[in-house]
Amino acid sequence: MQVRAINLAEKLALIGELWAPSTVAALNDYDIKVVKVDGEFVWHDHAATDELFLVLNGQLTIRLEDGEVVLNPGELYVVPRGKRHCPIATAETHVLLIEPRGTINTGEIVNELTRSPTTI
Amino acid sequence: MQVRAINLAEKLALIGELWAPSTVAALNDYDIKVVKVDGEFVWHDHAATDELFLVLNGQLTIRLEDGEVVLNPGELYVVPRGKRHCPIATAETHVLLIEPRGTINTGEIVNELTRSPTTI
Repeated sequence: MQVRAINLAEKLALIGELWAPSTVAALNDYDIKVVKVDGEFVWHDHAATDELFLVLNGQLTIRLEDGEVVLNPGELYVVPRGKRHCPIATAETHVLLIEPRGTINTGEIVNELTRSPTTI
Repeated sequence: MQVRAINLAEKLALIGELWAPSTVAALNDYDIKVVKVDGEFVWHDHAATDELFLVLNGQLTIRLEDGEVVLNPGELYVVPRGKRHCPIATAETHVLLIEPRGTINTGEIVNELTRSPTTI
């Protein structure tokens, strides 16, 4: 039986909305998500968990209160739990996110950008 | 302060040995690893955890007892916990692995391929 791989580009092609993470796989109690981003998100943190960002296409800057990290394709950064951050992109950028199931994209903030991840 | 991203290609360039996962980042109690593979590994399973494979370069086939999955760059597969599998590549292939800290590369098998991950 041929088992189908999860193709990240195919999954991203299904996504219309920016800043709306979509779950593509599960790893124990973690979700593997992809997200399209462009522009500036909202400053927030996740008190209970680290959060992994791996850039697939484009460029993502993660602003931190004490600096910033710039991620190009094939580069990752893990935002430590409790660390306030604000992701920004100046063009459409595709990102793989990994975090425990139930993690809210806007962290402790609930606003018009808050999304419950859907599975695609 | 400019925080340095983790560049996966740069990390892979530091690795000489095949089938020897190297840790590049931590996500809570999970390790993010990269590994260079070529040839056939050993049939094994991980009784306590799922295991994520994301191909960065090359092509990885993961044989399963009931089939196989072929992963090209940008494709991932999560081997379910307890599922016996055998990774194979016909040319040098670079893979991102994610699994809980302490997971042994050869699962329940201990042989000459067993490695304790080092951090690079």
